[in-house]
Formats: sequence, structure tokens, C-alpha cells
Amino acid sequence: MTDFEATRAMFHLPEGVIYLDGNSLGPRPLTALARVQRMLADEWGDMLITGWNRAGWMDQPARMGDRIARLIGAEAGHVVLGDTLSIKVYQALASALEMVPDRRVIMSDTGNFPSDLYMADGLCRTLGQGYTLRTVPPEEVADAIDETTAVLMLTEVDYRTGRRHDMPALTARAHAAGALAIWDLAHSAGATDVHVADGHADFAVGCTYKYLNAGPGGPAFIYVAPRHADSARPALSGWLGHEAPFAFDQDYRPGTGIERMRVGTPPVIQIAALDAALDIWDGVAITDVRARSLELTDAFIAGVERACPDLELATPRDHAARGSQVSFRHPDGYAIMQALIARGVIGDFRAPDILRFGFTPLFIGMAEVDAACAVIAEVMAGRLWDRPEYLTRGRVT
Amino acid sequence: MTDFEATRAMFHLPEGVIYLDGNSLGPRPLTALARVQRMLADEWGDMLITGWNRAGWMDQPARMGDRIARLIGAEAGHVVLGDTLSIKVYQALASALEMVPDRRVIMSDTGNFPSDLYMADGLCRTLGQGYTLRTVPPEEVADAIDETTAVLMLTEVDYRTGRRHDMPALTARAHAAGALAIWDLAHSAGATDVHVADGHADFAVGCTYKYLNAGPGGPAFIYVAPRHADSARPALSGWLGHEAPFAFDQDYRPGTGIERMRVGTPPVIQIAALDAALDIWDGVAITDVRARSLELTDAFIAGVERACPDLELATPRDHAARGSQVSFRHPDGYAIMQALIARGVIGDFRAPDILRFGFTPLFIGMAEVDAACAVIAEVMAGRLWDRPEYLTRGRVT
Repeated sequence: MTDFEATRAMFHLPEGVIYLDGNSLGPRPLTALARVQRMLADEWGDMLITGWNRAGWMDQPARMGDRIARLIGAEAGHVVLGDTLSIKVYQALASALEMVPDRRVIMSDTGNFPSDLYMADGLCRTLGQGYTLRTVPPEEVADAIDETTAVLMLTEVDYRTGRRHDMPALTARAHAAGALAIWDLAHSAGATDVHVADGHADFAVGCTYKYLNAGPGGPAFIYVAPRHADSARPALSGWLGHEAPFAFDQDYRPGTGIERMRVGTPPVIQIAALDAALDIWDGVAITDVRARSLELTDAFIAGVERACPDLELATPRDHAARGSQVSFRHPDGYAIMQALIARGVIGDFRAPDILRFGFTPLFIGMAEVDAACAVIAEVMAGRLWDRPEYLTRGRVT
Repeated sequence: MTDFEATRAMFHLPEGVIYLDGNSLGPRPLTALARVQRMLADEWGDMLITGWNRAGWMDQPARMGDRIARLIGAEAGHVVLGDTLSIKVYQALASALEMVPDRRVIMSDTGNFPSDLYMADGLCRTLGQGYTLRTVPPEEVADAIDETTAVLMLTEVDYRTGRRHDMPALTARAHAAGALAIWDLAHSAGATDVHVADGHADFAVGCTYKYLNAGPGGPAFIYVAPRHADSARPALSGWLGHEAPFAFDQDYRPGTGIERMRVGTPPVIQIAALDAALDIWDGVAITDVRARSLELTDAFIAGVERACPDLELATPRDHAARGSQVSFRHPDGYAIMQALIARGVIGDFRAPDILRFGFTPLFIGMAEVDAACAVIAEVMAGRLWDRPEYLTRGRVT
């Protein structure tokens, strides 16, 4: 059994704060300070250029990829780190489209994270030739997949509602129609029991700064199924994805397997923080995380609904259809969230009316759920958000 | 006058090392430790998600862009940070090609950094429709530009030879032929007196981990000339380049000016290190850097040629055609560099036969030039590289 008291003690959590925003930015692992310090002082400072070999910087994207692979049910050797999630979406999509050359439609849903849709749209414009992005409401995706669909591109867990798609079923549906499936795990990795291999995903991408706690701007990752690893052609054909980057050949030859999905120089300082964050996961079973997450979100839903009839649940009650966050709708959602933050309950707001609360079992337990419910009840009962200082829109990611 | 004794004291330079590889990875600024520590502890640790606003993380790509703009002769407000250099090359190229819709040829040179060529090649494959990358030897570029050229894409300073292109002249040649010009400043920014605005570059891209000393994996930057800033269409259309990222609209609308060239979440920890590195530049005039660089490289060329007739100079003697590095050719270049590194003179090797030495006036002075020349002379005179342990190829970036 995973010891969640132990994992909780591995994070810096400021006094007086109940942090329900680990789904946007995870908190700092205590060891990240020393790990990054060591990288800066002993590696960059003293090894200088030789750090690429001696400190293993060059191999970190694959090593970290393997550590993440375990958490998303991927085969070892088939995940690599790099770039931002938007870039990885583009990369997966460009490769996938080339593998289904006779079709022109990218199918996605209206609940997908906008950047995924924007990147797809940009790629369609670049490709021309009739490529289009088609979006339907999340619940209509299964029926919308047809013989024109080249690629199904979905985010498993909806960033607003926390609704979770059925990855194996939708992937099977895509495959049956002759399409490929790309899964964005932004709100899944480290939060739910993802199984990209068992789910037969063709590509998967994700970020490390949410439930994996790598810190702001932590690099993204990409998974390519072993069956495609040596045939997927990278559109973003950077030198570190070359078969022999240090031969400095004029012509691009893709590297072996997942290595070809590397592009440029890895962000070594960010990776040091990620490395510290992944240490915490060494003692953690993702099945325990999933079970605990459902307990916490169940309790939170029950607690808020009991006290706050004005908040409308936006997250599915069905466990199978829920990620690790709970969202409520309210027309004054923005101001309500400001009032909560002022009282130490940190969630976030997503336009137009979503209050979003993330539950990360590594550092959130039942005591925080109860305390958060009490604060929310107090704010709602007293209409404490109805003050000028809470009504001004700010910008929070 | 820039005080180079003062800037030198701002770096951690290990004992017994003459570091002539700042053109590959700059050394660590002393203040980077505390600056990154502060970011991790006070910002990420204590502010958590609110750091995006309170610590200004969201605006850093533009703020850092302005600090870099001064060093490359760019207009303030027209440089932004993000991604890797390879991604920025792709981004600039995709935008530029769309602005010259009736032409299909990207012109570059065989001395360009391979990743730039690979990215261009990958983009051509994605575009199809007859787009091609054409490379000619560097000295033939001017004459090869013609009415079929859509975009001239060059790296100003050759990563192997240190040869510097004439940016204003070649850009004028491209413009006269109806083409656009993209300049890669990887080996220019912080090393030479670059003037992207006066040189009428249409786009420029560069990295921060070489002469700017941001540390391994520091983010890249992109410049778009003001005349194109609101019309260049980003192919990598990520959410942070959107006009209103936090409106979470379904449709992409490019942001104002250079902001549209942002893609995903910025690497905040890397940026903290860059911020410390850029502090050093506050007291530095780039014209002083250029003058000092030429003195140092002149002295180094003279010193090596005097003692080592077997080393063939690969770098132009002409000041106008030289960046801030000096390269020599030798068939045993790899082993010779290993022997030099073992004696504390750190340069690097580039296949097939280039010994490369970078000169960064911020921390390299005439004493280091003399000492390096003495070690090189000793190694060459005694054939000290001719040992089994130096002959095995390793991997150094």
C-alpha cells in the first residue's frame, strides 16, 4: 500500500493553504531545492560542457521518459521528454496524419484543451490539401468517428469538467474505422490509472508540471506505440532526433524508436526539478492513487452538495467517467474563487463559469477535503464573494 | 568602457581550466544559484499557482526578450523567448514561406547548423507542393539567390569555421530578389555586434545557453521585424500566442505582434537562470565585446600559427568575416582535443576534423589566450595526443 502520509511529507506546502490546484501546477518537492542546486553547482558549474556526458544530461530525456512510462502504463523505452505539450501535440499529429495518407479529418471534441485544437488547426493550415479539424461535443465523439477520420485526437480528462473519456473504447472505435488515436494525458498522468499500452493508444502526450510536480514550465513527454516507433516520421525533425546527431550530417535520418521524437537541446535545469519530483513516485502505486482520488473526489462532491445547493456539479458522478478533479458551475464563479483563495482554499477558475478543484492524493487527504468543504460552505452561505475586490478579473493559468 | 575584469568575477570558473567552449555552453554566473533558489523557494514553493501573476512568470518571455533585443540590435517589444532553437527555426520558416506564397525554395548553405537544415527539410515534407531546401557552399550564397528563392535561411556565424556572413548585404540581396531573410544568431548573440534591425532581417532566432550563459537547455528566442509582426501567421499556433489565452476560445486568433510567436508554457526555472545571466550584460556594451573578441581571436590565431604549423586555420583572417571563435583543422582533431581537455584547455571537436575554440570576453582575457597557446604548442610539439585513451570517440555537444 502506498503511504500517503509519507508522500505528503515530501512536499513544501505553505501554512494555511489547502492546495487544490495541483492539476494546474503541482507544489514543490522538498528535495527539488537541493537537486537543482547540485545540478547548477556540481554539474553546470564544475563540469561545464562535459556535463552532457559526465552528468548524463544527454540521456535524461529517455531516462525520465522511462520513469514516466511506468505511471502511464507504457512500455519502457517508448516515452521521451522534451518541448512543451503544444509542440508534442503537433508532433504526434503530424506523424499520425502521414500514416493515414488517404484521409483528411482530425476528429476532436469541443472540451479539448484549446491549445490542442489551435495546434491542430495550425497544422491543417500548413498542410493545406483539404485537411480539417472537426470537433463535436465529448459525448458525441464515438458516433462521429467514421471512415473519413484520419486521427482521433482527444484529451482523456477534460480540463474544465474533469470528465474522463474511455480511452480503450474510443481507441478501439478509431481503429475499427481505420483511424489512429492520439491521447493527451495532461490531466491524467499521475492522476489516474492510465494504460496507454493496454488501451492501444497510437500516440500519447502529456505534461509534467501538473500531477507530476515538476515545477512551472517542466517539459512535456511523448509516447509512440512500439508498433509505430520505427516508422513514425517526425515532422519536427531536430538534430537530437537524428540517428547520429554528432555526425552533423547534412541529411536527416530519424533515430531509433522514440529517440526520433526528440527535437532540440533538453532543458537540463527543469529536468533536475522533475527528477526530484519523480523520486516521490518511486514508492507509489498508481492504482492506490486512483482509489484514493475517487474517495477524495466522492467526499468532496458530497460535502459541497450537502452545503451549497447553488453550486452545480459539472463533473460526472460515475467513477469511470471522472478524472481527479471536481468542478462546479456558478455564474459568479470567478468572484467565488477569489473569495476562496483569500481564505486559503486554492482552486482555479475556467471561463465562463467553472470552479475547478484538483485532488492529488500524494499531498491531499480527507482532512483537507473536509476543511475545504467548510470554507466553501461559509463563502456560499454568506455570499462572501460579493465584494468589489473579488469581481475584477485577473489572469491565472 | 566595459569592465571585463568585473564581468569575469561574476562567473564560476573552475580552477585549472581555460574554458574556450562558451560558444557551446556558457559557464555559470555566480548569482544563478541564488536566483534559481529564490525562484524555487519563494516563487514556486510559496506562491504556487499564483506565481504566474505575482512573480510575473507569464510576462517573462517578453521581458527577457527585451533584454536580449538590446544585444542583437532589435527594437524593444519584438523579441520573445520560448522553445528550443530548432522549433524557433521551424516557426520562423513556416511564417516566412506563407508570406511569399508564389515561391517554393528555401535557400541555405552547407555550413548551416544541421538542425536548421533538418527542420527546413521536415517542413518541406509537411508542406509538399514542391517545397524544397536548396543548399550551396557559404561563399556561393549571394549568387545563388534568385527569383525562385522564397526565403534565405542562414546562420550568421558558422558553427564549425567561425566564418561570419555579411547579414546586411545578403539580406539586401534577398530582398532585391523578392525573398525574405531569416537569421540564426546561435553563434552571434552575445558574441558579435549583431544589428537585426539595421540589417533589415525579417526574422531572427537564437539560443541563450552559449554566449548568453543561461545554462544547459536555456530557452531560445525569436525576433520578427516590426513590419511583419502583426501579419506573420504562426504555424505553431499555441495557446500562449493566442490573443486571449485565458478566454479558452475554440478558435485561434493570433496575439498582438511578437506575442503570437509564443507557443506553450514557458520554462520558468530555466528563465530564472537566464535572468541572472542577463544581469551581467547590463553593464556591457556589445561594441566593446566585439572589439575585445577580435583582439583575442587575432592573438590566438597568431599564437597557434607561430608554434603549430600542422594546424590549419579554418577561420577567416578578415575581421568582418569572423565571429568569436577560432577553428583549426587537423586529421587527428578529435584526439588532439582530448589531449587538450586533459590539460585543462576546454574547446570542442566537430566532425570531421575541426578543433573549435570560443572566445567570450566576459570571462576570457589575454592571459587565457597565452596560456592556451602554450598548452596547444606543447601538445602538438610532443604529439601528446597520440595515445589510446584519446582516440576513442565520445559524445560532446
